[in-house]
Amino acid sequence: MALKLSSRGNIPPFIVMDVLRSANERAAAGEDILHLSLGQPVTPAPPLVLEAVKKAIDTEAIGYTDALGIPLLRQRIAEHYKYLYNQTVDPNRIMVTTGSSAGFLLSFLAAFEPGDKVALAAPGYPAYRNILTALGIEPVLIEVGPKERFQPSLEVLEAQGESLDGLIIASPSNPAGTMLDEESLKSIVAYCEKKQIRLISDEIYHGISYGAKATTALKFTDNSFVINSFSKYFSMTGWRLGWMVLPEDMVRAEECLAQNFFISPPTLSQIAGAAVFDCYDVLDEYVQQYTRNREILLNELPKVGFGDIAPADGGFYIYADISHRTNDSQEFCRRLLCDTGIAATPGVDFDPFNGDHFMRFSFAGAEETMLEAVKRLKDWP
Amino acid sequence: MALKLSSRGNIPPFIVMDVLRSANERAAAGEDILHLSLGQPVTPAPPLVLEAVKKAIDTEAIGYTDALGIPLLRQRIAEHYKYLYNQTVDPNRIMVTTGSSAGFLLSFLAAFEPGDKVALAAPGYPAYRNILTALGIEPVLIEVGPKERFQPSLEVLEAQGESLDGLIIASPSNPAGTMLDEESLKSIVAYCEKKQIRLISDEIYHGISYGAKATTALKFTDNSFVINSFSKYFSMTGWRLGWMVLPEDMVRAEECLAQNFFISPPTLSQIAGAAVFDCYDVLDEYVQQYTRNREILLNELPKVGFGDIAPADGGFYIYADISHRTNDSQEFCRRLLCDTGIAATPGVDFDPFNGDHFMRFSFAGAEETMLEAVKRLKDWP
Repeated sequence: MALKLSSRGNIPPFIVMDVLRSANERAAAGEDILHLSLGQPVTPAPPLVLEAVKKAIDTEAIGYTDALGIPLLRQRIAEHYKYLYNQTVDPNRIMVTTGSSAGFLLSFLAAFEPGDKVALAAPGYPAYRNILTALGIEPVLIEVGPKERFQPSLEVLEAQGESLDGLIIASPSNPAGTMLDEESLKSIVAYCEKKQIRLISDEIYHGISYGAKATTALKFTDNSFVINSFSKYFSMTGWRLGWMVLPEDMVRAEECLAQNFFISPPTLSQIAGAAVFDCYDVLDEYVQQYTRNREILLNELPKVGFGDIAPADGGFYIYADISHRTNDSQEFCRRLLCDTGIAATPGVDFDPFNGDHFMRFSFAGAEETMLEAVKRLKDWP
Repeated sequence: MALKLSSRGNIPPFIVMDVLRSANERAAAGEDILHLSLGQPVTPAPPLVLEAVKKAIDTEAIGYTDALGIPLLRQRIAEHYKYLYNQTVDPNRIMVTTGSSAGFLLSFLAAFEPGDKVALAAPGYPAYRNILTALGIEPVLIEVGPKERFQPSLEVLEAQGESLDGLIIASPSNPAGTMLDEESLKSIVAYCEKKQIRLISDEIYHGISYGAKATTALKFTDNSFVINSFSKYFSMTGWRLGWMVLPEDMVRAEECLAQNFFISPPTLSQIAGAAVFDCYDVLDEYVQQYTRNREILLNELPKVGFGDIAPADGGFYIYADISHRTNDSQEFCRRLLCDTGIAATPGVDFDPFNGDHFMRFSFAGAEETMLEAVKRLKDWP
């Protein structure tokens, strides 16, 4: 018997996860691997968070919660908007999710019909287009490069021919690290409102920037889905926790979807999430570390043959044009891992148009990792 | 501006979660609420699990894991099949999931195209049909009642007219608690193999039964998706952890889907899951408690007007026909909660055909809760 695999089950891998596996296999075989692939802080959740979780284990039942998340956590997320952006957000519009991954699924399900067209920048986070495709929604890739600072602009949006139902923006960008300035964001929001395009603003790298701070789409509209995560600034990847700020008329629909698709986000992680808002001092030290790591790579990478790199305004990635060295970024990264033990991510994970001559270095690791990587790259042909 | 809510975003709530919220609001207002609604063990994860998690918090980075789950946990799940059923399962076919909820989403995505027809029993777990519908798959509800012991049979399957792409079975059933005996399961598996129908076997209540033990579909086929959870027998609801045993040719597709939709299941929960397989003694004490609770309800409910109940072979539910008392189970349950403080779930959550005259009592709570509930029901009109 050969029962079928559905066409939508046949989606591409998230290549960085496959890179991670190769790297881990080599590490297990005794190689000294430098991880510059995954967007995962090497730092743990702050100590106070860990203490709060251990206390909860001793004193609380770890049962299901409200599908929208525990009220205390929703309240603390609302306060975070006041703290970070001086923005007032009603806690009733906040929904806790099982990572930003769940936020993408739930927002796409509630906002779009099968056949709808949703625009997004290429390069960009690969799961956007893979989830959209699996749900029967058509991703409309907007090719952006250094000229556009790897971000869609009003001009780019107006120039593209199709009638859109949605637009996903990510500032800072993954993989490019570039940000939309406030005026550009404002004009994109206005364009979406005028054209009845549902905006999804992925803000998971907010809190990590090196010049101007990122602006939330909430400053300009209450109609967008704003997606965030505890995995980046909050340094809590394995906890699988994120949140959305929803348009008010979407809250009940998202609650019903979440009840059916998730029941509730992991309870211990929610308790951890509520505690992490008492740890801005620790989190900002982590950002200081990213700042030092970024300096090292920005100074040293050009000396070792990676000179053509996007401005890393925020987040913790360097996106490098390697067209002078290869036209097969996947093979290039394979060779790099094999020869030097440096795990990095080929651009094809992010961009079907030009990804074959780009690659991404993550600097979410330790400073020594950055220094050692630069040293190894010096000796590499 | 009135941006749309998608039609598939417009799915029904999981009513039991709404019942829970009303009950919690009443409890917060000082009422003494008896929870017989949610399928949630009142017992915590075993002490050894909690110790293992606290130790991991002190010693391990809580980072992303393989999308398929940590190898140790997959190994231990495989050993569980040996322990519980004397069944050999390759750990490479085991995928750890973020609750059985993720298992449903991932299996439906990989196995079915939009427009496919998937049969399932009514009454049944409401999220099956709600997730199917949101994914554009057509649920074909098979009406089953006391005559069929609330389970689909070979006869029922053969009698229904449509050409099916899939079949979901759940033994023990939620809400009815009835089980398929080994012969019935075998014949259903054979029918599916013959007709090229993809079988999804929901086995989340395995380990909790009161007569014959449940049989896994793996005994008869390697082509089905077998879905399980740490929330019932293992008493770990809020940890949001489950697993699937996959057809071998589905493993890579599911890995890619999971990378994109989830990245990985919550890490602390996976560490907890690996430890719980050292706790069969504690878990079996929990089952003893369910056994006592079940006896109380089976003996006492008929004396207080709930005599027409399904045989609770396994799981922790009593499904009662209340047609002699109401034709509006939702209103009936609302009145019950209001008058007596007993939270129970209306049948309409499980069955659009006959749910208006059924209700479900969960006996996953404490023995005193069962005794007190029976007492309050005696005094209720």
